[in-house]
Amino acid sequence: MTRQFAGIIAYPVTPFTPDGGIDVAMLARLINRLIDSGVHAVAPLGSTGESAYLSDEEWDLVATTSIAAVAQRVPTVIGISELTTAGAIRRARFAASIGADAVMVLPVSYWKLTEAEIVAHYAAIGAAVPIPIMLYNNPATSGVDMSPELIARICRDVPAVTMVKESTGDLQRMHRLRQLTGGTVPFYNGSNPLAFAALNAGAAGWCTAAPNLDAALPLALYQQIQAGDIAAARATFERQLPLLQFIVRVGLPTSVKAGLRLLDIDAGTPRLPLQPLGEQASAELAGILRALH
Amino acid sequence: MTRQFAGIIAYPVTPFTPDGGIDVAMLARLINRLIDSGVHAVAPLGSTGESAYLSDEEWDLVATTSIAAVAQRVPTVIGISELTTAGAIRRARFAASIGADAVMVLPVSYWKLTEAEIVAHYAAIGAAVPIPIMLYNNPATSGVDMSPELIARICRDVPAVTMVKESTGDLQRMHRLRQLTGGTVPFYNGSNPLAFAALNAGAAGWCTAAPNLDAALPLALYQQIQAGDIAAARATFERQLPLLQFIVRVGLPTSVKAGLRLLDIDAGTPRLPLQPLGEQASAELAGILRALH
Amino acid sequence: MTRQFAGIIAYPVTPFTPDGGIDVAMLARLINRLIDSGVHAVAPLGSTGESAYLSDEEWDLVATTSIAAVAQRVPTVIGISELTTAGAIRRARFAASIGADAVMVLPVSYWKLTEAEIVAHYAAIGAAVPIPIMLYNNPATSGVDMSPELIARICRDVPAVTMVKESTGDLQRMHRLRQLTGGTVPFYNGSNPLAFAALNAGAAGWCTAAPNLDAALPLALYQQIQAGDIAAARATFERQLPLLQFIVRVGLPTSVKAGLRLLDIDAGTPRLPLQPLGEQASAELAGILRALH
Amino acid sequence: MTRQFAGIIAYPVTPFTPDGGIDVAMLARLINRLIDSGVHAVAPLGSTGESAYLSDEEWDLVATTSIAAVAQRVPTVIGISELTTAGAIRRARFAASIGADAVMVLPVSYWKLTEAEIVAHYAAIGAAVPIPIMLYNNPATSGVDMSPELIARICRDVPAVTMVKESTGDLQRMHRLRQLTGGTVPFYNGSNPLAFAALNAGAAGWCTAAPNLDAALPLALYQQIQAGDIAAARATFERQLPLLQFIVRVGLPTSVKAGLRLLDIDAGTPRLPLQPLGEQASAELAGILRALH
Repeated sequence: MTRQFAGIIAYPVTPFTPDGGIDVAMLARLINRLIDSGVHAVAPLGSTGESAYLSDEEWDLVATTSIAAVAQRVPTVIGISELTTAGAIRRARFAASIGADAVMVLPVSYWKLTEAEIVAHYAAIGAAVPIPIMLYNNPATSGVDMSPELIARICRDVPAVTMVKESTGDLQRMHRLRQLTGGTVPFYNGSNPLAFAALNAGAAGWCTAAPNLDAALPLALYQQIQAGDIAAARATFERQLPLLQFIVRVGLPTSVKAGLRLLDIDAGTPRLPLQPLGEQASAELAGILRALH
Repeated sequence: MTRQFAGIIAYPVTPFTPDGGIDVAMLARLINRLIDSGVHAVAPLGSTGESAYLSDEEWDLVATTSIAAVAQRVPTVIGISELTTAGAIRRARFAASIGADAVMVLPVSYWKLTEAEIVAHYAAIGAAVPIPIMLYNNPATSGVDMSPELIARICRDVPAVTMVKESTGDLQRMHRLRQLTGGTVPFYNGSNPLAFAALNAGAAGWCTAAPNLDAALPLALYQQIQAGDIAAARATFERQLPLLQFIVRVGLPTSVKAGLRLLDIDAGTPRLPLQPLGEQASAELAGILRALH
Repeated sequence: MTRQFAGIIAYPVTPFTPDGGIDVAMLARLINRLIDSGVHAVAPLGSTGESAYLSDEEWDLVATTSIAAVAQRVPTVIGISELTTAGAIRRARFAASIGADAVMVLPVSYWKLTEAEIVAHYAAIGAAVPIPIMLYNNPATSGVDMSPELIARICRDVPAVTMVKESTGDLQRMHRLRQLTGGTVPFYNGSNPLAFAALNAGAAGWCTAAPNLDAALPLALYQQIQAGDIAAARATFERQLPLLQFIVRVGLPTSVKAGLRLLDIDAGTPRLPLQPLGEQASAELAGILRALH
Repeated sequence: MTRQFAGIIAYPVTPFTPDGGIDVAMLARLINRLIDSGVHAVAPLGSTGESAYLSDEEWDLVATTSIAAVAQRVPTVIGISELTTAGAIRRARFAASIGADAVMVLPVSYWKLTEAEIVAHYAAIGAAVPIPIMLYNNPATSGVDMSPELIARICRDVPAVTMVKESTGDLQRMHRLRQLTGGTVPFYNGSNPLAFAALNAGAAGWCTAAPNLDAALPLALYQQIQAGDIAAARATFERQLPLLQFIVRVGLPTSVKAGLRLLDIDAGTPRLPLQPLGEQASAELAGILRALH
């Protein structure tokens, strides 16, 4: 039976050892930290997890390590951001074979894709795996922008696509998607500074890297909105907004790894050409973290 | 003493007679209709009122007629969208002289303006009139985009600017403005499809042309959010969303005048080059209006 | 008989007196300077001439003064950038009545225009005057972007539109327009830093404010390209490119009026909210002018 | 001694066998065809060559096959478009080891790169190989946009970067780059519909996939511009412009592979999610090819 995704879906970083390999022990520790903090689901190999920068072998290792670490305590969705359909299918099959509850699929472009090519990409992956697909729209990283109309069409034509993660930062698209699907397709917010608005608009969950640095405030925001206490939720949101703005502005792997270091957790640095956060920005981040509570 | 603006601020169209002049009797009737329907404030000569398309004499006539029709039953804010500072000052002084509670000022560009030029524009108008200014940001019509940082600076440096209307459709700007001003500057939503989110985010009001066609739903949305009933508010919002999307897509004067005609109210057509709504789109609008209740 | 436009079409600024009125004596002097320098045509009331910032009375005065000053020594095209069709027709009729050889018409938007509205705008003006229209595309100032396909359609459907001025800075549009019209519609370059490329691509002329500050180099560029001496033309172009880049970056009225002041010609300052060029930028401009020859 | 790149630099597609592998025999044939047609250099593994879609093993095989096929008859530049610096270095070293004359390096982004990260990326590659680097700017495919100022800085700070390929389609950038480098850095046009303008502006060469379908017209254009015959060059350019517009609009691998099929050369289809050209578009392409001569 399919496990449901709702609430705070946390995105771990992929920790690297000093020589650039995957730090599997630290990865397990990061995932345990997230689950212990109360998040509702875990999403390895997302944008935060530098999925796009990993070789197939590395990606498989992170996936296997993550599934083992989660140990079915919460649902797991594994991220795939591949240029080719064949590559995406290989990774999706691997994820399904090791017990992932779902895959999150971002179509990445070099050459621009037509709508027909995007639909066929999802259909091919959907036909290849027995687990559900979370469609992921994030034009800023992928170069592919799917309109609410196209997303609704994919949800209709490709039965495996049962969830949608929207990261454009355009709230109107979430309202539009609800309109087009009659509210039948759960959608998830992927734009951190829109979390309060998206949850009010009916998002089933919030996909976020913030719990790596602070899980209490995202969880509180979700619970207050569930409880209908908008005034409290807005205050909770505004308290964490500087952190959300910072990690989006700087980039998630860069900022989260720097923040973990400030918390005395060594998850290494992002993979080059991404560079570690500079001293001045790290000091700014330290101030933001101190002011959270 | 300054009268406060909050809630639903309604924007009447400027009705024209068949020969292209201002239909003052119809203008008074439209304003009476809005006030009778319960809106909290009236804003003549906004974008909806085709302010930018009127000669000085016409603009003055609409302003005078509107102030007389409102008759202090609710606060009135009068819109100014002039290319030159001198022209904006002249209109602002006229508005103040006839009893407007505030002016809403949109800086319009032909040649791009520097930030210093925008600040000086507001400062010059502020120095010329004794009534408050609502700063209006609407790059899609004006060609001038003011960042939250610039808006906060103007609010700080120009005491007359005490309110902000944001029409970019970017919700993050509203959160950012609250952050930058410590929540001390009331802001107003000018992007119709963002009304639910903006009011949740703390907007003091919603500037909208929708009450020309249906005031009950905007008023209900505002009251439900005031009462903290988010589920009801979201349902109320989703009910009126097709109308809001339609009038934004087609353009406010064009769609509102066509909608009034469907309600058997002849406010004329927009001024050329704007053309009346075509038959097919009118039929679509009729269907949307029928489905509202 | 229609006079032809080709070569360097020079755009005078509109000089203001210290109290903000039109400086008619200086305007005549500026036009005489341009004609004496050898330019092939004169275009008062363009973007450079702050056409959009003038009242009807001021615009008429500048038009009349300009036509008298040119005194048929070269062709004159008068610029119109009006929001309403009625306003554009009034100005076009006035221009025709006083002897302009053509009008240059920029459709300006507040509310976005449909293609049908743009076509009808040109058709109405064309039907109202006996002189030819130069269609002017400049989305950066007007908010209206006409594709080559739309421009070709207007040239076909509105016989009065016999010339096209393209200011988008996108060279491919010029090639496209030539393709679509079979080369039958003369087009003019309005993007200063594209002058060399546009003339090579077959532009009939270059519409430019640069001759206010230096006419020799634009004229030399045109002649060298006419003579097929591309190497010389490229060197001539590269010599004046810093000036062209500067005036485009800063804005034409602001930079040209500052440059005239450096040449001891007092054409006043641009109309507020446009501010005079600051000291540092003026010094930069002085350096660029000194390096020209 | 370094071999110079100038003139028509031709980009072969990467042919696939029906089962999706590299068709090495066809690749050699395509390269021979290009060299026989007279092109001045060959550039395997560019955007046209689907470089970004190949595994490391496939990429190495295409590189080796290409170098062998060219057999030093003309210079060879090999394309690298890798997300990670480590991956780019590995490919660059391989290219150098098998005798490439240069590598063309496109920085590809998932997470946005800072300028410092881009400079460090080029510096690291430059330090790793003894052959020159052609910097490649193509934001539409890579998500990274390098300004002329940044490119000039890289050329100054990274000695290995000795050539620049610009594919933004913005001619002003080429003039600006010449200004900033004093004309010391040869630049190459990568935007097909700008070829005529770019060569006039001083481009050392034109990087193009068009010779796969017709080499005579690009070669003629280059020679006519070299000879200073601008009128003939413009006519030659306009003759091939429909083909250039078509292949850019549809995408290079898709359109070139379809065109080769029309010429009875089976180079397979692009890699999924890219789909083969549809029937209607193929018929359009056939018409364009027929009209070339």
